[in-house]
This record gives sequence, C-alpha cells and structure tokens, in this order.
Amino acid sequence: MPPYACTLADVRAAAARIKGVVHRTPVMTCDTLDRLAGRRLYFKCENLQKVGAFKYRGATNAVLRLTDAEAARGVVTHSSGNHAQALALAARVRGVPAYIVMPRTAPAVKKAAVEGYGGRVTLCEPNLAAREEAASKLVAKTGATLIPPFDHADVIAGQGTAALELLEDVPALDALITPVGGGGLLAGCTIAAQGVKPGIRVFGAEPSGADDAARSKAACAWQPQTAPNTIADGLLTSTGTLTWPIIRDLVEGVFTVTDDEIRTAMRLVWERMKLIVEPSGAVGVAVTLGAAFKALAGANTVGIVFSGGNVSLDKLYW
Amino acid sequence: MPPYACTLADVRAAAARIKGVVHRTPVMTCDTLDRLAGRRLYFKCENLQKVGAFKYRGATNAVLRLTDAEAARGVVTHSSGNHAQALALAARVRGVPAYIVMPRTAPAVKKAAVEGYGGRVTLCEPNLAAREEAASKLVAKTGATLIPPFDHADVIAGQGTAALELLEDVPALDALITPVGGGGLLAGCTIAAQGVKPGIRVFGAEPSGADDAARSKAACAWQPQTAPNTIADGLLTSTGTLTWPIIRDLVEGVFTVTDDEIRTAMRLVWERMKLIVEPSGAVGVAVTLGAAFKALAGANTVGIVFSGGNVSLDKLYW
Repeated sequence: MPPYACTLADVRAAAARIKGVVHRTPVMTCDTLDRLAGRRLYFKCENLQKVGAFKYRGATNAVLRLTDAEAARGVVTHSSGNHAQALALAARVRGVPAYIVMPRTAPAVKKAAVEGYGGRVTLCEPNLAAREEAASKLVAKTGATLIPPFDHADVIAGQGTAALELLEDVPALDALITPVGGGGLLAGCTIAAQGVKPGIRVFGAEPSGADDAARSKAACAWQPQTAPNTIADGLLTSTGTLTWPIIRDLVEGVFTVTDDEIRTAMRLVWERMKLIVEPSGAVGVAVTLGAAFKALAGANTVGIVFSGGNVSLDKLYW
Repeated sequence: MPPYACTLADVRAAAARIKGVVHRTPVMTCDTLDRLAGRRLYFKCENLQKVGAFKYRGATNAVLRLTDAEAARGVVTHSSGNHAQALALAARVRGVPAYIVMPRTAPAVKKAAVEGYGGRVTLCEPNLAAREEAASKLVAKTGATLIPPFDHADVIAGQGTAALELLEDVPALDALITPVGGGGLLAGCTIAAQGVKPGIRVFGAEPSGADDAARSKAACAWQPQTAPNTIADGLLTSTGTLTWPIIRDLVEGVFTVTDDEIRTAMRLVWERMKLIVEPSGAVGVAVTLGAAFKALAGANTVGIVFSGGNVSLDKLYW
C-alpha cells in the first residue's frame, strides 16, 4: 500500500486539535428512510456543523496547524462555496486574516456570507486561471498560506474527523457513504473509518452530471470532470492528486444518482427528518434509495454523511 | 395554591412511561440567534420528535396509561393537526385502533398523514359541534376512550417531559418559553420546570392573531379565542379548563408576535440552524427577537421549545 496524504494518526490528531472549536454534530435516524432503503441508516449531520458544512473541520485543522508566524500572515483560498466560508470563520476564530478569491459572477449572497465571517473578498474573472493567478498574487503580497478546498493533507485529515465521530457513536456500522466532489471528505473519512474499523466498506456518492469519480473508478485511472451539469453545486470538481489515490485503492465503489433522485431524497430529508440538507448533501441518501445500491448484498448498517445544508431559501427545489 | 391537573410526580411518571417510545430530542444552540436576541438560547428540538411534534409525548403517555381492556377498545379524538397524527401513531405502537374525526375540509395531505400512521379517519362537517358529535358517536359505538389534544391530565403531564429533559441537559436555564395554543405544552412544561427548579421563569409565546392567552393573563380571567387569524395554525384554540389555571398562576407572562415576526424567526431557524420549524414552532424564538422581551431584565439563559416541524414543502412562507 503506498503512503497516502494522511493516516489514522493524523485524523486523530486533527480531532484533538479541533475539539471544542468544531461542533460534534449529532447522528440521527429515520424509520421512514430505513424502510424505503431497506437498511438501517445513520446520518452524520454535518449540515448542522458551523458554517453549515463539514468544510469547517478541514479548514479549522489547517488553520490551527500553522505556526503563529505563519498564521499571523493569514490564509488564502479561491472558492465561492462552503470552503470559503469555512476558511473565513476558521481564520477569524484564530484572529488572523482570510483572503478569499471569488469569481465576480458569484452570487452576492455568497460574497456576503464570506464577509459575514470576516473574510476579505477579492473578485476576479470567472475562470480557474484567473482565480489561481489572483490567489498567487495575494500569497506573494501578504505572505499568507494557501489552503485549498480539498487537495491538502491537513484538510483531508480534518474532514476525516466526521467519520471518526460517527464510528464512535455507532460502532456497528458496516458501511459508510459520503458525497464525492474533490474527494476531501471521502478520502479523509475512508482513512478514518478503515483505520478504526478495518474491513468497513466505504462508498462514494456522486451526481450523474459530475461523475468523474465513478468514471475514474471504472477506468482505474484518474479522469477529469469537464462541463459538470447538476444541482449538486458542491460536487462539480475533479478529484485531486492527494484524494484520488485513496479513493482508487480503498473505496469500494462510487454510485451515481440523477438530479431528480437527489431532489426526491432531499425533499424526504426535509419532510421526514425536518433537516435542511443541500443537494450535494443529499446524494448519499439518494444512493441508498436507488436500485443499484439496493441490489448490493450486505452493508446492512450504513452511515451517511449529510455534508452540508447551505441552500438558498428563496426558491424550492421541487 | 390550588391543586392542578398534574404534578411534577406525574410528569416524572410520564417520562418513565414513554421512555424508549418517544425520542429524547436534542438541544441545540445558535451563535447568530444568541447575538440577535442578546441572550444565550437553548432550543429543545421537538420538531425532530416522532410525527414531527411534541404532541407525540402527551398522546403516548395517555395511550400507555389506559388499562389493557380500555386500550383494546381504542382511542378517539377530533383534530386535523399534529395531535391526530400523534394519537394515531401512539395507538399503533400499542397495537390498538385510533379513530380520528376530521372536518371534511381538511387538506388531503393531513388525512393521508393520519392514515399513514394507521389512524381510521371519520370525516364530518367543519364545525366544533359536528366534530364533538362525531367523536361522541364513535365513543358510544366502539367503547374507545376520548383523548383530547390538550385539556387532559395525562396529555399535559406527557408534554411536560420536554421541559424535564431540557433542564436535565441545561440545568443553568433561568427562563423557559413555549408556544401556547390550547396550553398543554405550556402548562406541562411549567409544572415540570418549576417542579425541578423552583423560581425558573416561564413565559408563553403566542401569535397576535390568536392572543387569547395574553388577553386572559392581562384580564386575570379566562378569555376565549374567536376568529383567530395567523399562519401559526397549531395555536388557534383557546386555553382549557385544566391548562388555564396553571398558566394563570404560574406563568409570568405571555408575549405576542406578529405573523411577520414569526416568518422572520422561522426563516432564521431554517437558514442558520438548518432546522425546519413550523410557524407555530417558531413563535418562541420570535418573542426573544422582539423589543418587549429584549426589554425584560434578567432571563439571560433561556430555553425555547421548537414545538413542531410539520409544514407543507410545496410553498415557502416568505
């Protein structure tokens, strides 16, 4: 087995580091969803995490790992999603600046959210090259540390703490499903879960409109995500150089679901569990309701990560 | 002090009786709401209770208090709200029939919900006399026991278990706010809270469009609710002969909020806490955000009951 970006020891160290800063989120169950899935499901509610997403775990771990001198110069990222808010809050909690590069086309509400957590927003053209250039300039100018959204050892270890807590609360799990976008959550949770419970089966859940991880698994080789098309706006990116090897070697499979399946699952969670999950957060439960996963033998007691709950409440999704 | 419908001992007995049947719901906090309210708030999440409302506590306690012979003949109520669903499920869990009288104008979705929990629905004309007559006929015909939605000692004691759990989890509370419609929740929680923590201040929260409890308190005499007009559809009724004396003597005050204040509070809870509360469930937090409660001295650590989360997800409220 090759060395991966992080180990169980790193995840445990992250858990100790972020304790008291990051919420220990509750694990919930729902008889109706169990009946529909034909399995016993345990939901790790990262939608109830600070900033409304698991991203706060990785961002906090990465910020707390900096030396005082590094931290004082601040942190930088380019993101318009949950990682941007998470990094802004993690930096504020440590009392250091967070420089967030966002495309000028990002919704005003997302910019406001980052600024609400004290982040300093720099707008740029809406393409990856412009974002990377703007971030590099900020690093050069301020000496701040770049904390990317997923392809970073401390971020991956931080995300893995969600699985560590889930298995502490429900040791009986024989399988775990997390959404996969860049793969930070899936990779970290895989390392953590198989570290504390060797043999536990881990699956990724992905929208069919951004199915690079499923294609990569099928091809046994990394595939990029181009032109994603899904309501699960947290899962648009390709997996990374640090996350992909973990997914390739240790994750049993990646199941895809359509946007309609995501909508149905999301509505069931809102309606039956009274919990707001975002589309990206509902792909795991959508997988368990689909024919492909139902056909899988075993995996009777399944943990599912509700990865986030940040939706616009100005519209409904169905 | 006159004898009331229930005592702390009754609430404790109810807690022991319903344990394992009823969810012990989580208590949550939210920094943003604390900041807006200027107080430390602890939310008892009865929106995450089975059937989506605290009503399952009282219904379960009442059904479990019946002798086997009584239970076998079933239970009856007339309601189109959360109590109907709660009683249907409580009866199914005990394996006995529940006869639910509903106005023929009740939304199909509410009828379907009751039937989904195994309730046997009898439709009647949409007025109180017709509902009471239909219920009486069912009692005469089947020998079933009438379990009203709030004015019943076992129901009140059951609802009080929510406050018992909340004070076990957060003993530091110096005040408690619950919504008040018929008053079962407020009365039961008052008996429980002041029983375990004498001197704790208890407040009711009521929509200004159904403000009978506030008017009753102001007049020091029971006032009926006629022609209620509010989105908080769980709080339309007058208080009862058993609940009113407890509210009159032991509750410090009842604060009213407008429907707009309820909408704003509800949206904040959805957005910041990722929890779905119904309008009736959001009146407590709406009170803490209003000028009248903000002007109150003391009450720095406040428990608030999110009483339910049953909303139609086909429309938004703002």
